[in-house]
Amino acid sequence: MQRDEPGSALIDFRPILFVIGLLMTTLAVAMGLPVIVDAAVGQSDWQVFAASAAVTLFVGIGLMLTNRTVGWDFTLRQAFLLTTLAWVVVPTFGALPFAFSELEMTYTDAFFEAMSGVTTTGSTVIVGLDYAPPGILLWRALLQWLGGIGIIVMAVAVLPILRVGGMQLFRMESSDTSDKAMPRVAQVASGIGSIYVVLTALCASAYFIAGMTGFEAVAHAMTTIATGGFSTSDASIGYFGAPVIDGIATVFMILGSLPFVLYLRAARGSLTPLARDSQVRWFLSIVATAIVVMTLYHANTNAVAYGDALRYASFNVVSVITGTGYATTDFSLWGSFALPMFLFMMFIGGCAGSTTCGIKVFRFQVAYATASTQIGRLLQPNGVYIPYYNRRPIPEQVSESVMGFFFVFIICFAGLALGLGLLGLDLLTAVSGAATAIANVGPGLGDVIGPAGNFASLPDAAKWLLSAGMLLGRLELFTVLILFAPHFWRD
Amino acid sequence: MQRDEPGSALIDFRPILFVIGLLMTTLAVAMGLPVIVDAAVGQSDWQVFAASAAVTLFVGIGLMLTNRTVGWDFTLRQAFLLTTLAWVVVPTFGALPFAFSELEMTYTDAFFEAMSGVTTTGSTVIVGLDYAPPGILLWRALLQWLGGIGIIVMAVAVLPILRVGGMQLFRMESSDTSDKAMPRVAQVASGIGSIYVVLTALCASAYFIAGMTGFEAVAHAMTTIATGGFSTSDASIGYFGAPVIDGIATVFMILGSLPFVLYLRAARGSLTPLARDSQVRWFLSIVATAIVVMTLYHANTNAVAYGDALRYASFNVVSVITGTGYATTDFSLWGSFALPMFLFMMFIGGCAGSTTCGIKVFRFQVAYATASTQIGRLLQPNGVYIPYYNRRPIPEQVSESVMGFFFVFIICFAGLALGLGLLGLDLLTAVSGAATAIANVGPGLGDVIGPAGNFASLPDAAKWLLSAGMLLGRLELFTVLILFAPHFWRD
Repeated sequence: MQRDEPGSALIDFRPILFVIGLLMTTLAVAMGLPVIVDAAVGQSDWQVFAASAAVTLFVGIGLMLTNRTVGWDFTLRQAFLLTTLAWVVVPTFGALPFAFSELEMTYTDAFFEAMSGVTTTGSTVIVGLDYAPPGILLWRALLQWLGGIGIIVMAVAVLPILRVGGMQLFRMESSDTSDKAMPRVAQVASGIGSIYVVLTALCASAYFIAGMTGFEAVAHAMTTIATGGFSTSDASIGYFGAPVIDGIATVFMILGSLPFVLYLRAARGSLTPLARDSQVRWFLSIVATAIVVMTLYHANTNAVAYGDALRYASFNVVSVITGTGYATTDFSLWGSFALPMFLFMMFIGGCAGSTTCGIKVFRFQVAYATASTQIGRLLQPNGVYIPYYNRRPIPEQVSESVMGFFFVFIICFAGLALGLGLLGLDLLTAVSGAATAIANVGPGLGDVIGPAGNFASLPDAAKWLLSAGMLLGRLELFTVLILFAPHFWRD
Repeated sequence: MQRDEPGSALIDFRPILFVIGLLMTTLAVAMGLPVIVDAAVGQSDWQVFAASAAVTLFVGIGLMLTNRTVGWDFTLRQAFLLTTLAWVVVPTFGALPFAFSELEMTYTDAFFEAMSGVTTTGSTVIVGLDYAPPGILLWRALLQWLGGIGIIVMAVAVLPILRVGGMQLFRMESSDTSDKAMPRVAQVASGIGSIYVVLTALCASAYFIAGMTGFEAVAHAMTTIATGGFSTSDASIGYFGAPVIDGIATVFMILGSLPFVLYLRAARGSLTPLARDSQVRWFLSIVATAIVVMTLYHANTNAVAYGDALRYASFNVVSVITGTGYATTDFSLWGSFALPMFLFMMFIGGCAGSTTCGIKVFRFQVAYATASTQIGRLLQPNGVYIPYYNRRPIPEQVSESVMGFFFVFIICFAGLALGLGLLGLDLLTAVSGAATAIANVGPGLGDVIGPAGNFASLPDAAKWLLSAGMLLGRLELFTVLILFAPHFWRD
């Protein structure tokens, strides 16, 4: 019987399509903001957004109407499919304003830009941001901002239940039930949403006070807290040339990299979890170490004053580790140590449950703890060695998931780099491009796609490949890869 | 009490030093061969080897006399210490002929060359091999040949008992006892030794028939079967410019990459284990795939005839994957796809229990099987998924060891690359240098240390760092790293 109805017996697509419709409707509403801004300044581009919003709204409402369902109970298969589909559909339609705008981008470029937006990567194909219509700049910022909150909610509510790459470590007690993938975490999500808005507002105010225009402040606040990295200028934050702005960005990029659940708990009065969280401590230690090392190197190699070296090193180190992707200078040129250092830093990422991507700090902790217990076992084969994370023993399946994640991450990274090489990109561009895509950083290294470069000149196939890499990295690999497992579609 | 006698209570150094003395005596005897060869052709360099042999023999016999012990029962700690110490002491004294010779090498260069020899890496700092005294050329070949058989015996007899990086998969049934680290595998070791000698003789005969001189044939046979890669010419195997010699080398590099235990079983009449071994099949499939891909790429990108493309691709792909490190052309120049492809191929290596290094194929199999079961578990959290290797379930601790190995391998590789960057090496040299050292391949990529280059121009500190990388890689990381664990030296 099931063979006659392939898929349909296994996966009911209606609730999935309903939620996709809901997301598209939200996206259409979000497109209203650039309409207002462009119309207010007399930019004719407002029509572009109005048209895009109309198309998106039409399809979105259509999907909702034709797939109305009763409940929010998703099976695991549905949850996997919905998650990946959401992160494909949003850039597909989010690209429309770019494609329709006066920038005359091809749909490939438009999709790349939108995917780079919602995945909070920050790679761009647009040259001449400084003269782009404000609606477009706002739309880029909005995509990242929405992508940022989207990923936090997913990391809190969905990924732990899907048990992707060790994320089950972060299951909330309340969600610890059965196979149903949509727990009652609505209140947590809305709490985190409020914190996200407050942090964005604080960041925007700080930027504004430091000298940005109101528009620049809001646009940059959105992409700072989302650790996204889109800017309103080709020169990124370097455009402002202001140490205070660099400092504000550094602080808020770090704030965007910490687990938002801990902010929620802190807001409710218990600061201890945030202060004692081992992932937070590791993350801050890694960042501090990298800043010190790069400051010393930059100061000594390039005969830069220590103050300046600290300013540029701290900003750019934080920007790369957190995967934000702003730049204030072309750190590719700092010397032979800077290139491998920035390349490896791309992979690190921030904490789980933040807007950052990359491998993430807790995975390094779990892998380190697991490898350490192995060293112990080598000497005492019958001894009992238990790896710990955050003062709790790490369940065996979490260790395995994390180790599997590392392996799959390397394979995907290597495959992506090889693909880019096959398309004719030079080694540095191919390797750093693969890294920056899969870790959702933004710029790569070198002349072409480095901090002073741009992704515009790459061949179309490379842009699609990089877009796929961003999606893979953003959804923690397994969420996407599982769709390619044959038994996902069979019983 | 123990605090007053640090170490001595925990580790009895006498049996360790006794075996080291035995190894040095063997090394001194091996130095006799170049003495004979150089004296026979009237090269005054024979005195260099005689002197080196005298020093080595003196220290070796001294160690043996002062540390005589009764049995061969080693504790785990002693076995770890002995293994690492052996692979440090042999190059330390094996470097003497280089340091004393007419080549006037610094001790740094001499040690690098000797370490590159015994670890079967094949990186060289000597320019002008074509005019070097035959004794020196023979000594380089001998170091690799001895290093090759040394590592096979270790992989069969020692590493499985030390359970390093998943090597416990290859425990022989007879060795499956207690904590004592020296099983009665003498007969297996001598059987493998005979096969090693026979394969070397076959390879040398084939080379000779194909047109090499007797000396060249023996020297290259030794470094082919050891997947070492030292040659008697700066142009490596490319010097001969003979397709037949390329072919012979390709075949014997592959033979050197298969598990020697299976040859032993085949020699005893049971061919099935060799024919059905999944590691062998994976390895051959990987090699075949890489050859096909590179042949197509080389032929199409560089407008080379398919026959020539196949010849150069197959030789150089096999040379890099197996970590031999011969070259017949500068494959760095084949195009943008070749560089990342050769870079990633460096890491693969051959089968466990062969002379190859690198990550090794069985680890990819275990990691793949483990990651696959995870995909299964994502969909069926309560399902039972067991990873298999070679038609047997993989014990959990093996999966963990292998995954830990991957993690530590990446960290060591990254650390090495960063260190080389700090010493001023450009990115390609630093990254490929780190890879080629830790995977014991030989040449790196690029102008400086690529197939057409040489390690001579690197700063001394880089040579020591690379030597450390070779040691780490050759001893499967953990064997060395465990010595740095504080509780190795405490109870």
